[in-house]
Amino acid sequence: MSAIPDDFINKTASLSEAVTKPFHNSRKVYIQGSRPDIRVPMREISQAPTTASFGEEENPPIPLYDTSGPFTDPAHKIDLLKGMPDLRSHWIEEREDSETLSGPSSDYGRGRLADPALSPLRFEHIRAPRRAKPGRNVTQMHYARQGIITPEMEFVAIRENCRLQQLAKDPRYAKLLRQHPGQAFGARIPDEITSEFVRSELAAGRAIIPANINHPELEPMIIGRNFRVKINTNIGNSAITSSIEEEVEKMAWSARWGGDTLMDLSTGSNIHETREWILRNAPMPIGTVPIYQALEKVDGKAEELTWEIMRDTLIEQAEQGVDYFTIHAGVLLRYVPLTAERITGIVSRGGSILAKWCLAHHQENFLYTHFEEICDIMKAYDVAFSLGDGLRPGCLADANDAAQFGELETLGELTKVAWEHDVQVMIEGPGHVPMQMIKENMEKALQDCFEAPFYTLGPLVTDISPGYDHFSSGIGAAQIGWYGTAMLCYVTPKEHLGLPNKADVREGIITYKIAAHAADLAKGFPGAQLQDNAMSKARFEFRWDDQFALSLDPERAMAFHDETLPHQAHKVAHFCSMCGPHFCSMKITQDVREYARSQGVGEGEALRQGMQEKAVEFKHQGAELYKEL
Amino acid sequence: MSAIPDDFINKTASLSEAVTKPFHNSRKVYIQGSRPDIRVPMREISQAPTTASFGEEENPPIPLYDTSGPFTDPAHKIDLLKGMPDLRSHWIEEREDSETLSGPSSDYGRGRLADPALSPLRFEHIRAPRRAKPGRNVTQMHYARQGIITPEMEFVAIRENCRLQQLAKDPRYAKLLRQHPGQAFGARIPDEITSEFVRSELAAGRAIIPANINHPELEPMIIGRNFRVKINTNIGNSAITSSIEEEVEKMAWSARWGGDTLMDLSTGSNIHETREWILRNAPMPIGTVPIYQALEKVDGKAEELTWEIMRDTLIEQAEQGVDYFTIHAGVLLRYVPLTAERITGIVSRGGSILAKWCLAHHQENFLYTHFEEICDIMKAYDVAFSLGDGLRPGCLADANDAAQFGELETLGELTKVAWEHDVQVMIEGPGHVPMQMIKENMEKALQDCFEAPFYTLGPLVTDISPGYDHFSSGIGAAQIGWYGTAMLCYVTPKEHLGLPNKADVREGIITYKIAAHAADLAKGFPGAQLQDNAMSKARFEFRWDDQFALSLDPERAMAFHDETLPHQAHKVAHFCSMCGPHFCSMKITQDVREYARSQGVGEGEALRQGMQEKAVEFKHQGAELYKEL
Repeated sequence: MSAIPDDFINKTASLSEAVTKPFHNSRKVYIQGSRPDIRVPMREISQAPTTASFGEEENPPIPLYDTSGPFTDPAHKIDLLKGMPDLRSHWIEEREDSETLSGPSSDYGRGRLADPALSPLRFEHIRAPRRAKPGRNVTQMHYARQGIITPEMEFVAIRENCRLQQLAKDPRYAKLLRQHPGQAFGARIPDEITSEFVRSELAAGRAIIPANINHPELEPMIIGRNFRVKINTNIGNSAITSSIEEEVEKMAWSARWGGDTLMDLSTGSNIHETREWILRNAPMPIGTVPIYQALEKVDGKAEELTWEIMRDTLIEQAEQGVDYFTIHAGVLLRYVPLTAERITGIVSRGGSILAKWCLAHHQENFLYTHFEEICDIMKAYDVAFSLGDGLRPGCLADANDAAQFGELETLGELTKVAWEHDVQVMIEGPGHVPMQMIKENMEKALQDCFEAPFYTLGPLVTDISPGYDHFSSGIGAAQIGWYGTAMLCYVTPKEHLGLPNKADVREGIITYKIAAHAADLAKGFPGAQLQDNAMSKARFEFRWDDQFALSLDPERAMAFHDETLPHQAHKVAHFCSMCGPHFCSMKITQDVREYARSQGVGEGEALRQGMQEKAVEFKHQGAELYKEL
Repeated sequence: MSAIPDDFINKTASLSEAVTKPFHNSRKVYIQGSRPDIRVPMREISQAPTTASFGEEENPPIPLYDTSGPFTDPAHKIDLLKGMPDLRSHWIEEREDSETLSGPSSDYGRGRLADPALSPLRFEHIRAPRRAKPGRNVTQMHYARQGIITPEMEFVAIRENCRLQQLAKDPRYAKLLRQHPGQAFGARIPDEITSEFVRSELAAGRAIIPANINHPELEPMIIGRNFRVKINTNIGNSAITSSIEEEVEKMAWSARWGGDTLMDLSTGSNIHETREWILRNAPMPIGTVPIYQALEKVDGKAEELTWEIMRDTLIEQAEQGVDYFTIHAGVLLRYVPLTAERITGIVSRGGSILAKWCLAHHQENFLYTHFEEICDIMKAYDVAFSLGDGLRPGCLADANDAAQFGELETLGELTKVAWEHDVQVMIEGPGHVPMQMIKENMEKALQDCFEAPFYTLGPLVTDISPGYDHFSSGIGAAQIGWYGTAMLCYVTPKEHLGLPNKADVREGIITYKIAAHAADLAKGFPGAQLQDNAMSKARFEFRWDDQFALSLDPERAMAFHDETLPHQAHKVAHFCSMCGPHFCSMKITQDVREYARSQGVGEGEALRQGMQEKAVEFKHQGAELYKEL
């Protein structure tokens, strides 16, 4: 084992204020479900009233879907050393289908736990792992197929609805809830997301709730095309050492800005311990690519990988609480030569590892040949499959080729196998695809993989944008999200160039929140336009503070505004920096409204007459665009 | 007249190195046309050869469409005091349909020229303005309709082709020129852009070449949906004073990063003189919104605007050389009440000015009632119309409403009038539109305005992204560009918040270059994928330096890469920072290729056998992914 670098061990109980401070004018609220221990967190933005000049009225609070977890709740005392509150153990226990083990059942997990040299690194309150009782199946899909609505299902139903039904009864929201009809490309989104709808989508395999029974800290969320589009973020490093504290902070940072799930792609020597810290403090599902760790166990020599090492790694991670595994079981021997004439060959790291293994052994991919055994592990902990696209295109030229689509068909075959075990599945997708070829990817994924949720990386719509690949992939992400992709894997500005720092992570997340939200709007997800409408009204009424709070990134909106107009007084000023105090185009509409109201719109000649009168009056009053009352 | 602030006058002959230094591994080349004075600038990127391990071969130079003008040509000596080389006067003179005036024919232009107090501000080599001879029409559309191919038309044909026909004959480009079929939504893009095709598109009104006869410094470019998608950038300030030098530098900065045209939206008191400096140094078409300056002339009181003031302003600017005017002639009295129930009313500044004028006078918009007189001015100088969408939606909720679409129909009516005068026209479009409603905008614009080029601002696909609106508008821009929009007006990260600085301008431009390029790829514009393919090949072969040069923003790509791997040696290293030196997924493909080549792909059982042999060999050789030769 490699020595532990001194600066790796830095157990800090807390996080920086940048990660935990509540958002502008926002408070954390919890919506209770059918039982007191179902408490769904939301962020509620308070708004200032409309001033007299725009027609005095109260502006109601706006509830938002909130990924930031207990970190942003001032009532929650953060203690990373103890981990997050245990939300789900009671739910899991009362199902009586799992049991607590005496300790890790993986060789590796046992070894790490027994090694006294690791104690300074170790999370101090490790729970004994839980596993399905023999013959039992603890997946959410299994319950759904039995007709059981779990607390997890109810939790996500409340979360997706975001109080829409209550707001719809409140007249203050009437105008704010107006929304354009969506175009959903075959998605069937109901007006209200009920627990029963969640159950039926899970049972059909159209959605998953990644929720390992060993990750009770999780705030459940759902991934499926009839729900809000989600985004995944990645953390993990390779070349550069980082501390446990830093990794946990990265996770919380990701939660703050809107990451719905997080993949830990670390490859360092202490990833087992780092992962424990992350999981014990993570409010979101955590995914991994277990073959990365398996590869470390054979010193990076892909050809020395074995099913036994992989199996032990799967169990090791499942017992820590990883919620989904990327498994590249579709990289078949026969597909490998199909990549030979590509411009960029195989670009997926997992895909390359398995291609190398296949070449070195001339045997079929061991993840494919042992797929049912993997299913047995998955259903004992409820780990969801993220079936990896190891042969995804690495450039536009290679998009939608025989290797990519061949693998996709195999992922469909594996989906069926997993579903026979009631194991939850999502399908990973590309990559680099020009716009006119994106739709084919979505349609083929739905068809070949029987509507299992699609989870794509971008796709990037051009190859020539290093430094801006978050954006060129975001264009593709917005489109494929609209077409039906359930989760978008974010890309940072450092893609293809280096490792992202915190600023890059935030930039990547907000970019992807925009793409996901744009997709929700385009699909017509109920209530999706509420935040936009509230923003627009605040904009029209020059309520700057409310505009900041309603922004995806309130801190940047405020900082940018303050660069030009730094004084606090401007926050309520009735002008903005674009036109200066003398003229602002939004102000005219106030006049338009006044006369439209006084004359009534659409009353033909009477209107014309009235307008003429109004015009004279308008001039006589000094033709002021904006009148202080 | 307001006093000239001391710091406004700072006549500098040169630009900062940041603006003029040639791009990485690039040189300026000029492609000669049918006559020696047609010399079309391009940027040519030289590439390093492929190293032995990837199959030794030369990598040919990649020519790129180049907007950066003479600024980036080291052979051109920049002297802002003298202005740019005069490319077009000879072409204009030999047509013998225009004459040089003794001086400005606008009252305002004469007044500014005669004012001795302005001499420190004034560009010193102002040419006397040129105007069509009585009864003559000097528009490119007019020539096109006469069957005349002008040097301007030939120039843009060569520019659009970007040497594709020559490259296609060179075997070194064979693989690099492979491209996916496009989906063009009714656009009819030929394999080769000929001068005759340019002429026929201009004659049909489907494209424009904005090229005022008083802007002979211009490098002609074309805007139309059967050509490359273009982007416009804006400069100009309102609240903050800036110097002439600063404004010229902004223009050159915009050219450097890829702005195809530039709108000068300045509203200061010395805009006449600033505009002269910009025009005399601008290689791209310059657009303005003349009503902004007209409003300044009546001290910001919209109701005091008159046709006479507007007319004088149009002539003033046309004689300086402005290439296109935004004219909000479609804001009709009857449409104004239709905005009353909107959430954000009228958000276009020009639209608001005219709505206010209409209200104050209860008369029809004077730009509408005097439209034919405006056409007479336009055709005397060849100024193109950019028919403004004064009633564009300012938020998603207001998208595609009766006010917006009513105005669009009027713009179609005006297009017909302009075309009767052979005046070039493009149509401005929104704004804020959710994704599922974007296509309707494009289709309606094509239909109502008879396929005149569409020029849109975004559209933004969500309202909740202040600080990131370049991106949320870029998503919409990529889509509407794909559907057929000819030019995309950029948005910076400061949109809705404040005035962009240089970093914001660069960020906005690159974002829009990505959107425009993604649209070219999706439409299947011939040769559009060349740069992507070259990038992908360089990426696969770890030619970092070539990757930087082939990037839309080489400087950022290099800076980001160097943050993680700062040493020069890494520029040719066969690994990148994501996976570290031990493992890189791209390397595996080299092995795949080797055995595919040695065994032949697709030879059935022989292949299987060969692969097995190869597998043994692979392991015996140490299973090294990458072999140094």
